[in-house]
Amino acid sequence: MDFKTTLQAAWARNDSLLCVGLDPDPTKFPAHLRGRDDALLVFCKSIVDATADLVCAYKPQIAYFAANRAEDQLEALIRHIHEKHPGIPVILDAKRGDIGATAEQYAREAFERYGADALTVNPYMGFDSVEPYFAWKGRGVIVLCRTSNAGGSDLQFLETGGRKLYQHVAELVATKWNAGGQCALVVGATYPAELAEVRRLVGDMPLLVPGIGAQGGDVAATVSAGRTAAGTGLMINSSRAILYAATDKKAGEDFAAAARQVALETRDAINRYRR
Amino acid sequence: MDFKTTLQAAWARNDSLLCVGLDPDPTKFPAHLRGRDDALLVFCKSIVDATADLVCAYKPQIAYFAANRAEDQLEALIRHIHEKHPGIPVILDAKRGDIGATAEQYAREAFERYGADALTVNPYMGFDSVEPYFAWKGRGVIVLCRTSNAGGSDLQFLETGGRKLYQHVAELVATKWNAGGQCALVVGATYPAELAEVRRLVGDMPLLVPGIGAQGGDVAATVSAGRTAAGTGLMINSSRAILYAATDKKAGEDFAAAARQVALETRDAINRYRR
Repeated sequence: MDFKTTLQAAWARNDSLLCVGLDPDPTKFPAHLRGRDDALLVFCKSIVDATADLVCAYKPQIAYFAANRAEDQLEALIRHIHEKHPGIPVILDAKRGDIGATAEQYAREAFERYGADALTVNPYMGFDSVEPYFAWKGRGVIVLCRTSNAGGSDLQFLETGGRKLYQHVAELVATKWNAGGQCALVVGATYPAELAEVRRLVGDMPLLVPGIGAQGGDVAATVSAGRTAAGTGLMINSSRAILYAATDKKAGEDFAAAARQVALETRDAINRYRR
Repeated sequence: MDFKTTLQAAWARNDSLLCVGLDPDPTKFPAHLRGRDDALLVFCKSIVDATADLVCAYKPQIAYFAANRAEDQLEALIRHIHEKHPGIPVILDAKRGDIGATAEQYAREAFERYGADALTVNPYMGFDSVEPYFAWKGRGVIVLCRTSNAGGSDLQFLETGGRKLYQHVAELVATKWNAGGQCALVVGATYPAELAEVRRLVGDMPLLVPGIGAQGGDVAATVSAGRTAAGTGLMINSSRAILYAATDKKAGEDFAAAARQVALETRDAINRYRR
Protein backbone atom coordinates (compact mmCIF):
# COMPACT_ATOMS: atom_id res chain seq x y z
CA MET A 1 0.00 0.00 0.00
CA ASP A 2 1.37 3.44 -0.76
CA PHE A 3 2.07 6.27 1.66
CA LYS A 4 -1.00 8.36 0.92
CA THR A 5 -3.41 5.43 1.04
CA THR A 6 -1.89 4.24 4.32
CA LEU A 7 -2.08 7.76 5.75
CA GLN A 8 -5.74 8.14 4.76
CA ALA A 9 -6.59 4.81 6.36
CA ALA A 10 -4.74 5.83 9.56
CA TRP A 11 -6.57 9.18 9.69
CA ALA A 12 -9.86 7.27 9.61
CA ARG A 13 -9.03 4.26 11.79
CA ASN A 14 -7.46 6.24 14.66
CA ASP A 15 -9.68 9.29 14.10
CA SER A 16 -6.46 11.28 14.36
CA LEU A 17 -4.40 13.93 12.53
CA LEU A 18 -1.64 13.65 15.13
CA CYS A 19 1.89 12.73 14.04
CA VAL A 20 4.31 11.96 16.87
CA GLY A 21 7.88 13.13 16.19
CA LEU A 22 10.49 10.73 17.55
CA ASP A 23 13.44 12.98 18.52
CA PRO A 24 15.14 10.88 21.21
CA ASP A 25 17.51 13.00 23.30
CA PRO A 26 19.24 10.77 25.89
CA THR A 27 19.89 13.72 28.21
CA LYS A 28 16.11 13.96 28.70
CA PHE A 29 15.48 10.25 29.26
CA PRO A 30 14.19 8.90 32.57
CA ALA A 31 16.98 7.81 34.89
CA HIS A 32 16.49 4.05 34.46
CA LEU A 33 17.23 4.28 30.70
CA ARG A 34 20.36 6.40 30.84
CA GLY A 35 23.59 4.65 29.99
CA ARG A 36 21.89 1.72 28.24
CA ASP A 37 23.37 0.95 24.82
CA ASP A 38 19.92 0.58 23.32
CA ALA A 39 18.33 3.50 25.21
CA LEU A 40 17.08 5.33 22.08
CA LEU A 41 15.32 2.24 20.78
CA VAL A 42 13.80 1.28 24.13
CA PHE A 43 12.61 4.84 24.75
CA CYS A 44 11.04 5.25 21.29
CA LYS A 45 9.45 1.79 21.27
CA SER A 46 7.78 2.54 24.61
CA ILE A 47 6.40 5.82 23.24
CA VAL A 48 5.18 4.08 20.06
CA ASP A 49 3.54 1.17 21.86
CA ALA A 50 1.74 3.60 24.18
CA THR A 51 0.37 5.83 21.41
CA ALA A 52 -0.15 3.70 18.28
CA ASP A 53 -3.96 3.87 18.46
CA LEU A 54 -3.88 7.67 18.70
CA VAL A 55 -1.72 8.75 15.74
CA CYS A 56 -1.82 8.96 11.94
CA ALA A 57 1.99 8.73 11.54
CA TYR A 58 5.36 8.58 13.30
CA LYS A 59 8.22 10.86 12.30
CA PRO A 60 11.66 9.78 13.54
CA GLN A 61 14.25 12.57 13.24
CA ILE A 62 17.44 10.97 11.93
CA ALA A 63 19.79 13.60 13.44
CA TYR A 64 19.23 12.27 16.96
CA PHE A 65 20.17 8.75 15.90
CA ALA A 66 23.15 9.91 13.83
CA ALA A 67 24.59 12.06 16.62
CA ASN A 68 24.46 9.04 18.92
CA ARG A 69 25.89 6.45 16.47
CA ALA A 70 22.54 4.69 16.61
CA GLU A 71 21.56 4.01 12.99
CA ASP A 72 21.00 0.37 13.90
CA GLN A 73 18.47 1.45 16.54
CA LEU A 74 16.66 3.58 13.95
CA GLU A 75 16.45 0.56 11.64
CA ALA A 76 15.08 -1.57 14.48
CA LEU A 77 12.59 1.12 15.52
CA ILE A 78 11.05 1.45 12.05
CA ARG A 79 10.94 -2.33 11.70
CA HIS A 80 9.15 -2.48 15.07
CA ILE A 81 6.53 0.08 13.99
CA HIS A 82 5.84 -1.78 10.75
CA GLU A 83 5.63 -5.19 12.45
CA LYS A 84 3.71 -4.33 15.60
CA HIS A 85 1.59 -1.46 14.32
CA PRO A 86 0.99 -2.12 10.62
CA GLY A 87 -0.92 0.66 8.92
CA ILE A 88 0.86 3.54 10.68
CA PRO A 89 3.13 5.21 8.11
CA VAL A 90 6.68 6.22 9.08
CA ILE A 91 8.08 9.52 7.85
CA LEU A 92 11.87 9.71 8.01
CA ASP A 93 12.67 13.34 8.82
CA ALA A 94 16.06 13.90 7.19
CA LYS A 95 15.46 16.97 4.98
CA ARG A 96 17.69 15.66 2.21
CA GLY A 97 18.74 17.82 -0.71
CA ASP A 98 21.46 16.98 -3.22
CA ILE A 99 22.09 16.40 -6.94
CA GLY A 100 20.63 13.40 -8.75
CA ALA A 101 23.32 10.75 -8.27
CA THR A 102 23.55 11.57 -4.58
CA ALA A 103 19.78 11.83 -4.12
CA GLU A 104 19.57 8.26 -5.39
CA GLN A 105 21.83 7.16 -2.54
CA TYR A 106 19.69 9.05 -0.03
CA ALA A 107 16.59 7.38 -1.48
CA ARG A 108 18.19 3.96 -1.03
CA GLU A 109 19.04 4.91 2.55
CA ALA A 110 15.51 6.11 3.40
CA PHE A 111 13.36 3.64 1.49
CA GLU A 112 15.48 0.47 1.38
CA ARG A 113 17.76 0.56 4.41
CA TYR A 114 15.24 2.14 6.79
CA GLY A 115 12.04 1.10 5.02
CA ALA A 116 10.48 4.54 5.55
CA ASP A 117 7.11 5.22 3.92
CA ALA A 118 8.01 8.87 3.29
CA LEU A 119 11.00 11.21 3.50
CA THR A 120 11.30 14.97 4.04
CA VAL A 121 13.36 16.81 1.38
CA ASN A 122 14.65 20.34 0.81
CA PRO A 123 13.67 22.17 -2.42
CA TYR A 124 16.64 24.59 -2.66
CA MET A 125 18.46 22.54 -5.32
CA GLY A 126 15.38 22.22 -7.53
CA PHE A 127 13.44 19.51 -9.32
CA ASP A 128 16.28 17.22 -10.36
CA SER A 129 17.30 16.96 -6.67
CA VAL A 130 13.79 15.71 -5.79
CA GLU A 131 12.92 13.61 -8.83
CA PRO A 132 15.09 10.55 -7.98
CA TYR A 133 12.92 9.76 -4.94
CA PHE A 134 9.88 9.26 -7.19
CA ALA A 135 11.45 6.11 -8.62
CA TRP A 136 10.36 4.43 -5.37
CA LYS A 137 6.70 4.25 -6.37
CA GLY A 138 4.17 4.97 -3.68
CA ARG A 139 6.66 6.44 -1.22
CA GLY A 140 5.92 9.92 0.03
CA VAL A 141 8.21 12.86 -0.75
CA ILE A 142 7.50 15.69 1.67
CA VAL A 143 8.99 18.97 0.47
CA LEU A 144 9.92 21.82 2.85
CA CYS A 145 7.76 24.82 2.03
CA ARG A 146 7.18 27.17 4.99
CA THR A 147 9.07 26.14 8.12
CA SER A 148 8.05 26.89 11.70
CA ASN A 149 11.34 28.39 12.94
CA ALA A 150 11.89 32.16 13.20
CA GLY A 151 14.66 32.10 10.57
CA GLY A 152 12.31 30.41 8.13
CA SER A 153 11.38 33.88 6.90
CA ASP A 154 14.97 34.72 5.85
CA LEU A 155 14.49 33.07 2.45
CA GLN A 156 10.95 31.68 2.39
CA PHE A 157 9.37 35.10 2.87
CA LEU A 158 11.30 36.86 0.09
CA GLU A 159 9.12 38.39 -2.62
CA THR A 160 9.56 36.87 -6.06
CA GLY A 161 7.26 37.69 -8.98
CA GLY A 162 4.57 39.18 -6.74
CA ARG A 163 4.47 36.39 -4.20
CA LYS A 164 6.60 34.89 -1.45
CA LEU A 165 9.16 32.17 -2.11
CA TYR A 166 7.19 29.62 -0.02
CA GLN A 167 4.12 30.28 -2.20
CA HIS A 168 6.23 29.72 -5.28
CA VAL A 169 7.45 26.40 -3.83
CA ALA A 170 3.89 25.34 -2.99
CA GLU A 171 2.75 26.09 -6.51
CA LEU A 172 5.79 24.45 -8.14
CA VAL A 173 5.18 21.26 -6.21
CA ALA A 174 1.40 21.26 -6.81
CA THR A 175 1.55 22.03 -10.53
CA LYS A 176 4.82 20.41 -11.67
CA TRP A 177 6.69 18.22 -9.21
CA ASN A 178 3.65 16.20 -8.11
CA ALA A 179 2.89 14.54 -11.45
CA GLY A 180 3.13 11.10 -9.83
CA GLY A 181 1.03 12.10 -6.82
CA GLN A 182 3.78 11.29 -4.29
CA CYS A 183 4.31 14.81 -2.88
CA ALA A 184 3.31 16.44 0.38
CA LEU A 185 4.56 19.69 1.95
CA VAL A 186 5.98 20.85 5.28
CA VAL A 187 4.16 23.99 6.49
CA GLY A 188 4.69 25.24 10.04
CA ALA A 189 1.84 25.80 12.49
CA THR A 190 3.31 29.07 13.67
CA TYR A 191 1.82 30.97 10.71
CA PRO A 192 -1.86 29.95 10.28
CA ALA A 193 -2.54 32.54 7.56
CA GLU A 194 0.25 31.06 5.47
CA LEU A 195 -0.95 27.55 6.14
CA ALA A 196 -4.37 28.62 4.78
CA GLU A 197 -2.68 30.15 1.72
CA VAL A 198 -0.77 26.92 1.04
CA ARG A 199 -3.94 24.87 1.44
CA ARG A 200 -5.59 27.14 -1.16
CA LEU A 201 -2.68 26.57 -3.58
CA VAL A 202 -2.32 22.79 -3.27
CA GLY A 203 -5.87 21.42 -3.02
CA ASP A 204 -6.04 18.22 -0.99
CA MET A 205 -2.30 17.54 -0.83
CA PRO A 206 -1.26 16.28 2.64
CA LEU A 207 0.56 18.83 4.79
CA LEU A 208 3.02 17.93 7.54
CA VAL A 209 2.64 20.63 10.17
CA PRO A 210 5.29 20.99 12.87
CA GLY A 211 5.19 23.74 15.46
CA ILE A 212 2.37 22.95 17.86
CA GLY A 213 3.25 21.93 21.42
CA ALA A 214 6.78 22.98 22.41
CA GLN A 215 7.02 25.42 19.49
CA GLY A 216 3.85 27.22 20.56
CA GLY A 217 1.54 27.04 17.52
CA ASP A 218 -2.18 27.31 18.22
CA VAL A 219 -4.18 24.13 17.61
CA ALA A 220 -7.53 25.76 16.73
CA ALA A 221 -5.97 28.16 14.23
CA THR A 222 -3.82 25.43 12.71
CA VAL A 223 -6.66 23.00 12.14
CA SER A 224 -9.12 25.51 10.75
CA ALA A 225 -6.44 26.98 8.43
CA GLY A 226 -5.07 23.70 7.17
CA ARG A 227 -7.78 21.04 7.02
CA THR A 228 -9.37 19.93 3.78
CA ALA A 229 -13.11 19.92 3.13
CA ALA A 230 -13.14 16.32 4.37
CA GLY A 231 -11.62 17.46 7.69
CA THR A 232 -8.31 15.70 7.07
CA GLY A 233 -5.23 16.55 4.94
CA LEU A 234 -2.97 17.24 7.94
CA MET A 235 -0.23 15.45 9.82
CA ILE A 236 0.09 17.72 12.85
CA ASN A 237 3.38 16.95 14.50
CA SER A 238 4.24 17.14 18.14
CA SER A 239 7.58 15.85 19.45
CA ARG A 240 8.97 17.17 22.71
CA ALA A 241 5.63 17.96 24.39
CA ILE A 242 4.70 14.27 24.06
CA LEU A 243 8.08 12.51 24.42
CA TYR A 244 9.12 14.38 27.53
CA ALA A 245 5.71 14.85 29.13
CA ALA A 246 7.02 13.17 32.29
CA THR A 247 10.42 14.88 32.40
CA ASP A 248 9.52 17.48 34.99
CA LYS A 249 7.63 15.07 37.17
CA LYS A 250 8.95 12.56 39.68
CA ALA A 251 11.58 10.14 38.36
CA GLY A 252 9.65 6.92 39.02
CA GLU A 253 6.67 7.93 36.89
CA ASP A 254 5.90 5.96 33.76
CA PHE A 255 7.06 8.24 30.92
CA ALA A 256 5.12 6.26 28.30
CA ALA A 257 1.85 6.67 30.19
CA ALA A 258 2.51 10.41 30.51
CA ALA A 259 3.23 10.56 26.77
CA ARG A 260 0.01 8.70 26.01
CA GLN A 261 -1.99 11.14 28.13
CA VAL A 262 -0.58 14.18 26.26
CA ALA A 263 -1.00 12.44 22.88
CA LEU A 264 -4.64 11.71 23.72
CA GLU A 265 -5.29 15.29 24.79
CA THR A 266 -3.57 16.62 21.66
CA ARG A 267 -5.50 14.33 19.32
CA ASP A 268 -8.77 15.30 20.97
CA ALA A 269 -7.91 19.02 20.94
CA ILE A 270 -7.23 18.72 17.20
CA ASN A 271 -10.49 16.84 16.65
CA ARG A 272 -12.53 19.57 18.30
CA TYR A 273 -11.72 21.85 15.34
CA ARG A 274 -11.79 19.38 12.47
CA ARG A 275 -15.41 19.32 11.41
CA MET B 1 44.07 24.88 13.91
CA ASP B 2 40.85 26.06 12.35
CA PHE B 3 39.38 25.10 8.98
CA LYS B 4 40.33 28.26 7.09
CA THR B 5 43.88 28.34 8.39
CA THR B 6 44.34 24.65 7.57
CA LEU B 7 42.89 25.20 4.11
CA GLN B 8 45.19 28.15 3.41
CA ALA B 9 48.21 26.13 4.49
CA ALA B 10 47.13 23.23 2.25
CA TRP B 11 46.65 25.56 -0.75
CA ALA B 12 50.24 26.72 -0.29
CA ARG B 13 51.96 23.48 0.67
CA ASN B 14 50.45 21.34 -2.11
CA ASP B 15 50.23 24.25 -4.56
CA SER B 16 46.70 23.06 -5.21
CA LEU B 17 43.09 24.25 -5.32
CA LEU B 18 41.86 20.71 -6.01
CA CYS B 19 39.38 19.09 -3.63
CA VAL B 20 38.79 15.38 -4.21
CA GLY B 21 35.19 14.30 -3.59
CA LEU B 22 34.94 10.85 -2.01
CA ASP B 23 31.67 9.40 -3.39
CA PRO B 24 32.34 5.66 -3.12
CA ASP B 25 29.91 3.69 -5.29
CA PRO B 26 30.59 -0.05 -4.88
CA THR B 27 29.07 -0.83 -8.27
CA LYS B 28 31.97 1.07 -9.85
CA PHE B 29 34.75 -0.50 -7.76
CA PRO B 30 37.46 -2.65 -9.32
CA ALA B 31 36.60 -6.35 -9.23
CA HIS B 32 39.01 -7.31 -6.43
CA LEU B 33 37.24 -4.99 -3.96
CA ARG B 34 33.65 -6.00 -4.66
CA GLY B 35 31.94 -7.97 -1.92
CA ARG B 36 34.43 -6.96 0.78
CA ASP B 37 32.75 -5.71 3.98
CA ASP B 38 35.19 -2.81 4.20
CA ALA B 39 35.27 -2.03 0.47
CA LEU B 40 34.27 1.65 0.81
CA LEU B 41 37.01 2.31 3.34
CA VAL B 42 39.70 0.41 1.41
CA PHE B 43 38.76 2.12 -1.84
CA CYS B 44 38.73 5.63 -0.36
CA LYS B 45 41.94 5.14 1.64
CA SER B 46 43.72 4.04 -1.52
CA ILE B 47 42.51 7.14 -3.36
CA VAL B 48 43.54 9.38 -0.45
CA ASP B 49 46.98 7.86 -0.01
CA ALA B 50 47.65 8.23 -3.74
CA THR B 51 46.61 11.90 -3.93
CA ALA B 52 47.35 13.53 -0.56
CA ASP B 53 50.22 15.66 -1.89
CA LEU B 54 48.03 17.02 -4.71
CA VAL B 55 44.92 18.32 -2.95
CA CYS B 56 43.77 21.15 -0.67
CA ALA B 57 40.87 19.16 0.84
CA TYR B 58 38.88 15.92 0.77
CA LYS B 59 35.10 15.93 0.64
CA PRO B 60 33.44 12.64 1.59
CA GLN B 61 29.77 12.50 0.56
CA ILE B 62 27.87 10.96 3.46
CA ALA B 63 24.99 9.63 1.30
CA TYR B 64 27.19 6.90 -0.20
CA PHE B 65 28.18 5.66 3.25
CA ALA B 66 24.64 5.90 4.64
CA ALA B 67 23.11 3.99 1.72
CA ASN B 68 25.59 1.19 2.34
CA ARG B 69 25.26 1.04 6.17
CA ALA B 70 28.89 2.12 6.36
CA GLU B 71 28.98 4.97 8.88
CA ASP B 72 31.77 3.16 10.72
CA GLN B 73 33.85 3.18 7.52
CA LEU B 74 33.28 6.93 7.15
CA GLU B 75 34.50 7.45 10.73
CA ALA B 76 37.59 5.34 10.00
CA LEU B 77 38.26 7.15 6.71
CA ILE B 78 38.24 10.61 8.27
CA ARG B 79 40.41 9.37 11.15
CA HIS B 80 42.82 7.94 8.56
CA ILE B 81 43.05 11.26 6.70
CA HIS B 82 43.72 13.19 9.89
CA GLU B 83 46.34 10.71 11.15
CA LYS B 84 48.21 9.93 7.95
CA HIS B 85 47.82 13.23 6.15
CA PRO B 86 47.61 15.93 8.82
CA GLY B 87 47.00 19.37 7.39
CA ILE B 88 44.47 18.28 4.76
CA PRO B 89 41.02 19.48 5.87
CA VAL B 90 38.02 17.17 5.56
CA ILE B 91 34.69 18.61 4.41
CA LEU B 92 31.72 16.40 5.27
CA ASP B 93 29.26 16.86 2.40
CA ALA B 94 25.87 16.32 4.04
CA LYS B 95 23.93 19.50 3.13
CA ARG B 96 22.18 19.62 6.49
CA GLY B 97 19.29 21.99 7.13
CA ASP B 98 16.95 21.87 10.13
CA ILE B 99 15.74 23.90 13.12
CA GLY B 100 18.08 24.78 15.98
CA ALA B 101 17.68 21.81 18.33
CA THR B 102 18.09 19.38 15.43
CA ALA B 103 20.96 21.34 13.88
CA GLU B 104 22.81 20.89 17.16
CA GLN B 105 22.51 17.11 16.75
CA TYR B 106 23.80 17.34 13.17
CA ALA B 107 26.71 19.46 14.40
CA ARG B 108 27.58 16.82 17.00
CA GLU B 109 27.42 14.19 14.25
CA ALA B 110 29.68 16.09 11.85
CA PHE B 111 32.20 17.66 14.20
CA GLU B 112 32.38 15.22 17.14
CA ARG B 113 31.44 11.81 15.78
CA TYR B 114 33.14 12.21 12.40
CA GLY B 115 35.69 14.88 13.34
CA ALA B 116 35.06 16.81 10.12
CA ASP B 117 36.78 20.17 9.72
CA ALA B 118 33.82 21.60 7.79
CA LEU B 119 30.24 20.72 6.86
CA THR B 120 28.00 21.71 3.94
CA VAL B 121 24.61 23.17 4.94
CA ASN B 122 21.42 24.29 3.18
CA PRO B 123 20.19 27.89 3.68
CA TYR B 124 16.47 27.35 2.98
CA MET B 125 15.48 27.36 6.67
CA GLY B 126 17.41 30.56 7.44
CA PHE B 127 19.92 31.81 9.96
CA ASP B 128 18.75 29.98 13.06
CA SER B 129 19.18 26.68 11.16
CA VAL B 130 22.85 27.55 10.47
CA GLU B 131 23.85 29.33 13.67
CA PRO B 132 24.18 26.22 15.92
CA TYR B 133 27.18 25.00 13.89
CA PHE B 134 29.15 28.12 14.82
CA ALA B 135 29.34 26.93 18.44
CA TRP B 136 32.07 24.57 17.22
CA LYS B 137 34.69 27.29 16.93
CA GLY B 138 36.98 27.15 13.96
CA ARG B 139 34.93 24.56 12.05
CA GLY B 140 33.89 25.55 8.55
CA VAL B 141 30.21 26.00 7.64
CA ILE B 142 29.82 25.85 3.87
CA VAL B 143 26.45 27.20 2.74
CA LEU B 144 24.79 26.16 -0.54
CA CYS B 145 24.49 29.21 -2.76
CA ARG B 146 24.43 28.40 -6.51
CA THR B 147 24.49 24.68 -7.25
CA SER B 148 25.86 23.06 -10.37
CA ASN B 149 22.84 20.91 -11.30
CA ALA B 150 20.33 21.95 -13.96
CA GLY B 151 17.48 22.21 -11.44
CA GLY B 152 19.58 24.59 -9.35
CA SER B 153 17.91 27.42 -11.26
CA ASP B 154 14.38 26.45 -10.17
CA LEU B 155 14.71 28.46 -6.95
CA GLN B 156 18.20 29.96 -6.93
CA PHE B 157 17.61 31.95 -10.11
CA LEU B 158 14.32 33.54 -9.04
CA GLU B 159 14.35 37.35 -8.96
CA THR B 160 13.89 38.89 -5.54
CA GLY B 161 14.36 42.59 -4.87
CA GLY B 162 16.20 43.19 -8.14
CA ARG B 163 18.59 40.29 -7.85
CA LYS B 164 18.60 36.50 -7.97
CA LEU B 165 18.02 34.37 -4.89
CA TYR B 166 21.58 32.98 -4.99
CA GLN B 167 22.94 36.55 -4.94
CA HIS B 168 20.75 37.29 -1.95
CA VAL B 169 22.13 34.20 -0.18
CA ALA B 170 25.72 35.20 -0.99
CA GLU B 171 25.16 38.66 0.43
CA LEU B 172 23.29 37.41 3.51
CA VAL B 173 26.16 35.07 4.33
CA ALA B 174 28.88 37.64 3.64
CA THR B 175 27.27 40.51 5.53
CA LYS B 176 25.36 38.78 8.36
CA TRP B 177 25.87 35.08 8.86
CA ASN B 178 29.68 35.19 8.72
CA ALA B 179 30.26 37.30 11.82
CA GLY B 180 32.52 34.61 13.27
CA GLY B 181 34.42 34.08 10.02
CA GLN B 182 33.50 30.39 9.75
CA CYS B 183 31.48 30.54 6.51
CA ALA B 184 32.24 29.49 2.96
CA LEU B 185 29.87 28.99 0.00
CA VAL B 186 29.08 26.31 -2.56
CA VAL B 187 29.01 27.77 -6.08
CA GLY B 188 28.91 25.48 -9.10
CA ALA B 189 31.49 25.60 -11.89
CA THR B 190 28.81 25.27 -14.56
CA TYR B 191 27.99 29.00 -14.41
CA PRO B 192 31.28 31.00 -14.48
CA ALA B 193 29.55 34.40 -14.76
CA GLU B 194 27.66 33.67 -11.57
CA LEU B 195 30.80 32.44 -9.85
CA ALA B 196 32.41 35.79 -10.71
CA GLU B 197 29.36 37.62 -9.34
CA VAL B 198 29.54 35.68 -6.05
CA ARG B 199 33.27 36.39 -5.78
CA ARG B 200 32.49 40.09 -6.17
CA LEU B 201 29.89 39.90 -3.38
CA VAL B 202 31.88 37.91 -0.79
CA GLY B 203 35.45 39.20 -0.98
CA ASP B 204 38.02 36.53 -0.09
CA MET B 205 35.55 34.00 1.35
CA PRO B 206 36.48 30.43 0.30
CA LEU B 207 34.24 28.92 -2.37
CA LEU B 208 33.66 25.19 -2.80
CA VAL B 209 33.16 24.66 -6.50
CA PRO B 210 31.70 21.37 -7.74
CA GLY B 211 30.95 20.71 -11.37
CA ILE B 212 34.25 20.31 -13.18
CA GLY B 213 35.15 16.87 -14.50
CA ALA B 214 32.12 14.59 -14.88
CA GLN B 215 29.70 17.51 -14.63
CA GLY B 216 31.40 19.36 -17.51
CA GLY B 217 32.44 22.71 -16.08
CA ASP B 218 35.32 24.47 -17.81
CA VAL B 219 38.52 24.74 -15.75
CA ALA B 220 39.89 27.94 -17.28
CA ALA B 221 36.60 29.82 -16.95
CA THR B 222 36.08 28.54 -13.41
CA VAL B 223 39.49 29.58 -12.14
CA SER B 224 39.54 33.00 -13.72
CA ALA B 225 35.99 33.72 -12.51
CA GLY B 226 36.46 32.47 -8.97
CA ARG B 227 40.02 33.03 -7.77
CA THR B 228 40.94 35.77 -5.33
CA ALA B 229 43.62 38.38 -6.01
CA ALA B 230 46.07 36.04 -4.26
CA GLY B 231 45.23 33.29 -6.77
CA THR B 232 43.51 31.11 -4.18
CA GLY B 233 40.04 31.19 -2.52
CA LEU B 234 38.78 28.05 -4.28
CA MET B 235 38.24 24.40 -3.45
CA ILE B 236 37.55 23.02 -6.91
CA ASN B 237 35.93 19.65 -6.48
CA SER B 238 36.22 16.63 -8.71
CA SER B 239 34.78 13.30 -7.68
CA ARG B 240 33.86 10.72 -10.31
CA ALA B 241 36.46 11.76 -12.90
CA ILE B 242 39.20 11.01 -10.36
CA LEU B 243 37.74 8.11 -8.37
CA TYR B 244 36.75 6.07 -11.40
CA ALA B 245 39.55 7.08 -13.75
CA ALA B 246 40.43 3.40 -14.23
CA THR B 247 36.89 2.05 -14.52
CA ASP B 248 36.83 1.82 -18.29
CA LYS B 249 40.31 0.36 -18.54
CA LYS B 250 41.48 -3.18 -18.02
CA ALA B 251 40.47 -4.80 -14.73
CA GLY B 252 43.98 -5.43 -13.36
CA GLU B 253 45.03 -1.82 -13.56
CA ASP B 254 45.84 0.03 -10.36
CA PHE B 255 42.84 2.32 -9.83
CA ALA B 256 44.70 4.48 -7.30
CA ALA B 257 47.52 5.19 -9.75
CA ALA B 258 44.95 6.12 -12.41
CA ALA B 259 43.24 8.41 -9.90
CA ARG B 260 46.57 10.03 -9.04
CA GLN B 261 47.29 10.68 -12.69
CA VAL B 262 43.95 12.45 -13.25
CA ALA B 263 44.29 14.37 -9.96
CA LEU B 264 47.75 15.56 -11.03
CA GLU B 265 46.51 16.66 -14.44
CA THR B 266 43.53 18.43 -12.88
CA ARG B 267 45.63 20.24 -10.30
CA ASP B 268 48.07 21.36 -12.98
CA ALA B 269 45.27 22.42 -15.35
CA ILE B 270 43.84 24.55 -12.54
CA ASN B 271 47.25 26.05 -11.78
CA ARG B 272 47.74 27.18 -15.38
CA TYR B 273 44.96 29.75 -14.86
CA ARG B 274 45.58 30.80 -11.26
CA ARG B 275 48.09 33.61 -11.55
